[in-house]
Amino acid sequence: MSERKVGIIMNGVTGRMGTNQHLLRSICEIMKQGGILCSDGLRIMPDPILIGRNRAKLEELSKLSGIENVSTDLDSALSDKRYAIYFDAQTTDRRAPAVKKALAAGKHVYCEKPIAVSSKEALELYQLAVKADLKNGVVQDKLWLPGILKLSRLIRSGYFGKILSVRGEFGYWVFEGDLIKAQRPSWNYRQEDGGGIISDMFAHWQYVIENLFGKINALSCIGATHIAKRWDENGKEYKCTADDAAYACFELEDDVIAQFNSSWAVRVRRDDLFVMQVDGEKGSAVAGLRKCWIQPQSATPKAVWNPDIDNPIDFYKGWTEVPDTQSYDNAFKVQWELFLKHVVLDEPFRWNFLEGAKGVQISEKAIESWNARRWIEIPSLLKGK
Amino acid sequence: MSERKVGIIMNGVTGRMGTNQHLLRSICEIMKQGGILCSDGLRIMPDPILIGRNRAKLEELSKLSGIENVSTDLDSALSDKRYAIYFDAQTTDRRAPAVKKALAAGKHVYCEKPIAVSSKEALELYQLAVKADLKNGVVQDKLWLPGILKLSRLIRSGYFGKILSVRGEFGYWVFEGDLIKAQRPSWNYRQEDGGGIISDMFAHWQYVIENLFGKINALSCIGATHIAKRWDENGKEYKCTADDAAYACFELEDDVIAQFNSSWAVRVRRDDLFVMQVDGEKGSAVAGLRKCWIQPQSATPKAVWNPDIDNPIDFYKGWTEVPDTQSYDNAFKVQWELFLKHVVLDEPFRWNFLEGAKGVQISEKAIESWNARRWIEIPSLLKGK
Amino acid sequence: MSERKVGIIMNGVTGRMGTNQHLLRSICEIMKQGGILCSDGLRIMPDPILIGRNRAKLEELSKLSGIENVSTDLDSALSDKRYAIYFDAQTTDRRAPAVKKALAAGKHVYCEKPIAVSSKEALELYQLAVKADLKNGVVQDKLWLPGILKLSRLIRSGYFGKILSVRGEFGYWVFEGDLIKAQRPSWNYRQEDGGGIISDMFAHWQYVIENLFGKINALSCIGATHIAKRWDENGKEYKCTADDAAYACFELEDDVIAQFNSSWAVRVRRDDLFVMQVDGEKGSAVAGLRKCWIQPQSATPKAVWNPDIDNPIDFYKGWTEVPDTQSYDNAFKVQWELFLKHVVLDEPFRWNFLEGAKGVQISEKAIESWNARRWIEIPSLLKGK
Amino acid sequence: MSERKVGIIMNGVTGRMGTNQHLLRSICEIMKQGGILCSDGLRIMPDPILIGRNRAKLEELSKLSGIENVSTDLDSALSDKRYAIYFDAQTTDRRAPAVKKALAAGKHVYCEKPIAVSSKEALELYQLAVKADLKNGVVQDKLWLPGILKLSRLIRSGYFGKILSVRGEFGYWVFEGDLIKAQRPSWNYRQEDGGGIISDMFAHWQYVIENLFGKINALSCIGATHIAKRWDENGKEYKCTADDAAYACFELEDDVIAQFNSSWAVRVRRDDLFVMQVDGEKGSAVAGLRKCWIQPQSATPKAVWNPDIDNPIDFYKGWTEVPDTQSYDNAFKVQWELFLKHVVLDEPFRWNFLEGAKGVQISEKAIESWNARRWIEIPSLLKGK
Repeated sequence: MSERKVGIIMNGVTGRMGTNQHLLRSICEIMKQGGILCSDGLRIMPDPILIGRNRAKLEELSKLSGIENVSTDLDSALSDKRYAIYFDAQTTDRRAPAVKKALAAGKHVYCEKPIAVSSKEALELYQLAVKADLKNGVVQDKLWLPGILKLSRLIRSGYFGKILSVRGEFGYWVFEGDLIKAQRPSWNYRQEDGGGIISDMFAHWQYVIENLFGKINALSCIGATHIAKRWDENGKEYKCTADDAAYACFELEDDVIAQFNSSWAVRVRRDDLFVMQVDGEKGSAVAGLRKCWIQPQSATPKAVWNPDIDNPIDFYKGWTEVPDTQSYDNAFKVQWELFLKHVVLDEPFRWNFLEGAKGVQISEKAIESWNARRWIEIPSLLKGK
Repeated sequence: MSERKVGIIMNGVTGRMGTNQHLLRSICEIMKQGGILCSDGLRIMPDPILIGRNRAKLEELSKLSGIENVSTDLDSALSDKRYAIYFDAQTTDRRAPAVKKALAAGKHVYCEKPIAVSSKEALELYQLAVKADLKNGVVQDKLWLPGILKLSRLIRSGYFGKILSVRGEFGYWVFEGDLIKAQRPSWNYRQEDGGGIISDMFAHWQYVIENLFGKINALSCIGATHIAKRWDENGKEYKCTADDAAYACFELEDDVIAQFNSSWAVRVRRDDLFVMQVDGEKGSAVAGLRKCWIQPQSATPKAVWNPDIDNPIDFYKGWTEVPDTQSYDNAFKVQWELFLKHVVLDEPFRWNFLEGAKGVQISEKAIESWNARRWIEIPSLLKGK
Repeated sequence: MSERKVGIIMNGVTGRMGTNQHLLRSICEIMKQGGILCSDGLRIMPDPILIGRNRAKLEELSKLSGIENVSTDLDSALSDKRYAIYFDAQTTDRRAPAVKKALAAGKHVYCEKPIAVSSKEALELYQLAVKADLKNGVVQDKLWLPGILKLSRLIRSGYFGKILSVRGEFGYWVFEGDLIKAQRPSWNYRQEDGGGIISDMFAHWQYVIENLFGKINALSCIGATHIAKRWDENGKEYKCTADDAAYACFELEDDVIAQFNSSWAVRVRRDDLFVMQVDGEKGSAVAGLRKCWIQPQSATPKAVWNPDIDNPIDFYKGWTEVPDTQSYDNAFKVQWELFLKHVVLDEPFRWNFLEGAKGVQISEKAIESWNARRWIEIPSLLKGK
Repeated sequence: MSERKVGIIMNGVTGRMGTNQHLLRSICEIMKQGGILCSDGLRIMPDPILIGRNRAKLEELSKLSGIENVSTDLDSALSDKRYAIYFDAQTTDRRAPAVKKALAAGKHVYCEKPIAVSSKEALELYQLAVKADLKNGVVQDKLWLPGILKLSRLIRSGYFGKILSVRGEFGYWVFEGDLIKAQRPSWNYRQEDGGGIISDMFAHWQYVIENLFGKINALSCIGATHIAKRWDENGKEYKCTADDAAYACFELEDDVIAQFNSSWAVRVRRDDLFVMQVDGEKGSAVAGLRKCWIQPQSATPKAVWNPDIDNPIDFYKGWTEVPDTQSYDNAFKVQWELFLKHVVLDEPFRWNFLEGAKGVQISEKAIESWNARRWIEIPSLLKGK
């Protein structure tokens, strides 16, 4: 049983997502479990260095994570041959320049989403990586949520027959911050600070839809700022300038329609914070983050419209939960393991920079549709494809 | 205690809706209960004549309903002074010509929806009725469904604070007709026969939305024919040419957004065949046909996104059902009683031909939006309003 | 990040409440968490000395708490400039003299309730503290119970509309001590030892009512000694001479009526040991110590009196629990932190000796009402207010 | 098996209570079941005549009930020897004069409560009946509610040991009548029309308390008009002038305290619309209208005050429901059967006019206490008793 160390430059993991999901629950967990066990007995063992701009924060993170290797000097880490991979979880505006440097230094690159502030810049990163023949990947964690995995397995099993339509409902009530503190940062609600639910969530809808149901041909979207004022982290009132809700329709290949609502101003009467209902000729499914329920055609009740009496059918009882048949690892960690095997063993990994660029593109097109008040076609990012 | 007889020409009540809802559950019930008791002790008693083209069917209906007065001769009924009201439940294409004759004969007119095949024709009927100073009304039964009444009372009580958004979800699985007989007539799925879910349902959405939430300023809609072939009443396969699903967004006054899905190709995992969720600053509600659930701001849970664990919140438990505080009569009957009091006592009745024309207009505009692939503004039907 | 040490003389913390609530769960916890983090990065760190009359008990407490600084010499601690704060949790009769000495020595003072044996003496303490310009506070812990905090937030959110009435029900069965040991000390049931439920609880009702619902204008109260004999800590029978139950009504400003029962001789069929039901025009709430349930007007069932059948309404189901939207610290600790910030940063703190004097006054007036068998008006303690 | 017919003049049974409870559910039911079967095989069969002022209403009632004997002439019925009993369910102001006439005519008399508008007049009726040696009774139906019967049986069994205290909680939300129609008549809320919860309910509390727990020595009461305006049967707004809530304390013999809240402006989080909790040395009980729960001393949990954690005791689970061990007849019918056996067989019947006078007295004294703002002693109505 041999071990292969892989040096990883982790930049910008002092933030909440970087610390929790990428460092503690992914890389540290992989190290604790003795690396990634591959089919031939090889163990891939991450060897991270934490890069940041604030030394005090880095040292605190070092103590918390047990990773001793920290530095504020990105350039010297990039020039160090021990590190094969560059990972970026900085704020979006700082991402593209750093990724370019990493590619120039010959590193494989893995990134948080969105990979750039525009689809043009994102595509440029992809082309740079292809030209340099370097591996590249973008975080698309929701694909490995148990609920989505169960749905994906239903699709692959042919359960649905022809898929007809998809409904996505995402959201919950984000408190205004006056009587009850908000559970999300205030910048999310200010356009001038990069906020807005479209730029936050549509990249996710893009990869979930296209990985599960097929290519998006066109979209129609309208955004709204339902809550006009909120109170920030210091209890100070501020004006909301970014969209806190978006209502979108996607036309997919094979005439599938996907209708998605996203909102931070909605109260939840459904199975989970995010649910997708998929209706197919032979059956339907509703997936949440971790659970999934199905109603095959033969269990479908024959509903009749008669408002004179309470409906005799309990519409929740006719669904069966898809049982757990495996244990589910943290979604970020699963994708990290796939990327590391992609780098070390050249195993396939389809969630590359081009995929990341598509996510950026969908957000751009959604905003374009909102402004133009019409359907927008989604062109291929690569000519002739 | 005096009684006032009101003669009603009921045309086209041999169909399913006409027989069940208008004749048996409305007019016959009103007669059984001794007429409509008005506040001054007066009782309004319907005195119907049933008109149809098929004498055999009329006689069967006479036996079923106990109404002895039947005829195939509309013209002579219209010329009979005993009848003050003409009611029309024929197929849509036959409605406008018959209504015009009735108005010309000086009858007050009450109609099934849609009142005409186009909003232009519908508006013409309205203007004819106004000119002749005759009372006119259109069926808008869903306004008197218990669930909608409860929602309406919540709105009037100020429960929601500012209303932010409305989500409507209508539909169920209409069986294809091969293994299991369809629970709707086959013409619904053929455009050439006047089928389609947009023309069937959007008139309802128009009056529900405008009566509860305010004027519709614009809409965006896309239709689909999800099920390509079905089997008709005789077990014969046919091609579906009409839309069986429609995904629409409405912009209302005061920046409210209403998003409505309608589908005959969806399986139901929700509280009822039709549910509307209304989210307001101070609380939310979900209404079905007869029931309604609320979650005020103070009962709103602070949901946090953490897909690593099963969500600790049961999102259904945090809602309370609005209790029944009155008994609810059949919605059609309630509107019939209001129309009869409108005719006899001149009590107000706002659901007139102009309102009916607006319903036709919304269907037209939805189809226009679908074709043009863009948002369509809804102009006022009356100039200068 | 700087730290400010604050010396605290803790007198009388060898008793049950002093040890558990003030020393272990408040001061020691604040020290463990690294002091109180203030908004500007300052950390306020308590530096306590434990004072008592019994050296052996003090040493045991030192071991238990880890606080090494103990002494039986109050006077020399008061003359020590390192200590800015004097805290008193002695028996009530010893409190006022010690507080006077502390004020004379220039200490800020924080006290257990009641702050004196009479409202006259309590008011004198307040006037001494004001004259010496020293900070002063009294424990009013129930204000920071999660259930009361939830209720308070409902009030501030306008949930109730006009508040109509409040019902408080406090109590449980305190075992007599023969077969089952009593869960409260025997002096509670002897008037000659300062016992009685009125003097124990009415100070709490005063601040809960006045902080949440408004000024108490008048009260009517009757006490009772329901259980005539009990068995003490040594299993010895004794005669109960103090009130173990009290039935009171309070008239508040704005015509609100608050009816409170307090009893150590009642069995509990309700949500918690102490519950308050608040009924308002737009909704009601029932709060326990940690939980709170609401029934808004729109969820209020239309109950009808019909004893011929089992009531068709489940009166518990129509209520929704107010969800937790924050984590709740120990109530005593929360108030300690507020007092320490009051001393160090001059932040506002409204629970001062005058408030403490009002609590003593209400107990006095309740007993006066009981004796006089009539309503008693509550005059302002400060002339001209 | 012999039958004895008893003629009953039923006056004022066209009202809601008279029709439903006295005529249909009591007298008609007794007739349907073949009369009252007495221990010696005798069957007492009521033979009623219905008296009223409105012939149309009487005839309608005759049709509804099947009682053919009706008349508007009270005097001639009173002079008819066939009728041994006079029953009065008229409005209160008309009761005493009619009862006097009936006594003068030698009839035994049974009455709805209150038997007169003042205790003085009520006592006079009692003295007239005694002098004439005629049987007399007043409706005190709540004594035969299943919940009260179960409680009464617990008392008689010695279950409670010494009874310490009683808490009564009566009330529910009577809707204001604007959005939701009120479930009680509007005169209840106008003092000028004889409204008010004290005059409606305190007569009931008097007989329930005195029959179950002992003589009332003194009372303290405060009333309130919580809801200032309501909407009447015609949807017209009116000012509420009568008390809609009352908070009372009763001192009973043997030092028992009974605390009763009555309110039409309270939402119900308890077991029933009216519940009484009785705490005794050996056990407690909570009775609703039909059910009753007990917690004996040996099932009493040892509750400890610790608000730092959710209370580990479910305070509802520690109670057991008293099982049904008999079937319960309608309470009004039960008392009718007892009165008829009292008249025919001279069986004892303690609910006579003197008892009725006590109920009137308690309402008077409660209002006196409210005005005087002090406890009021309850003198014996009969001198020297």
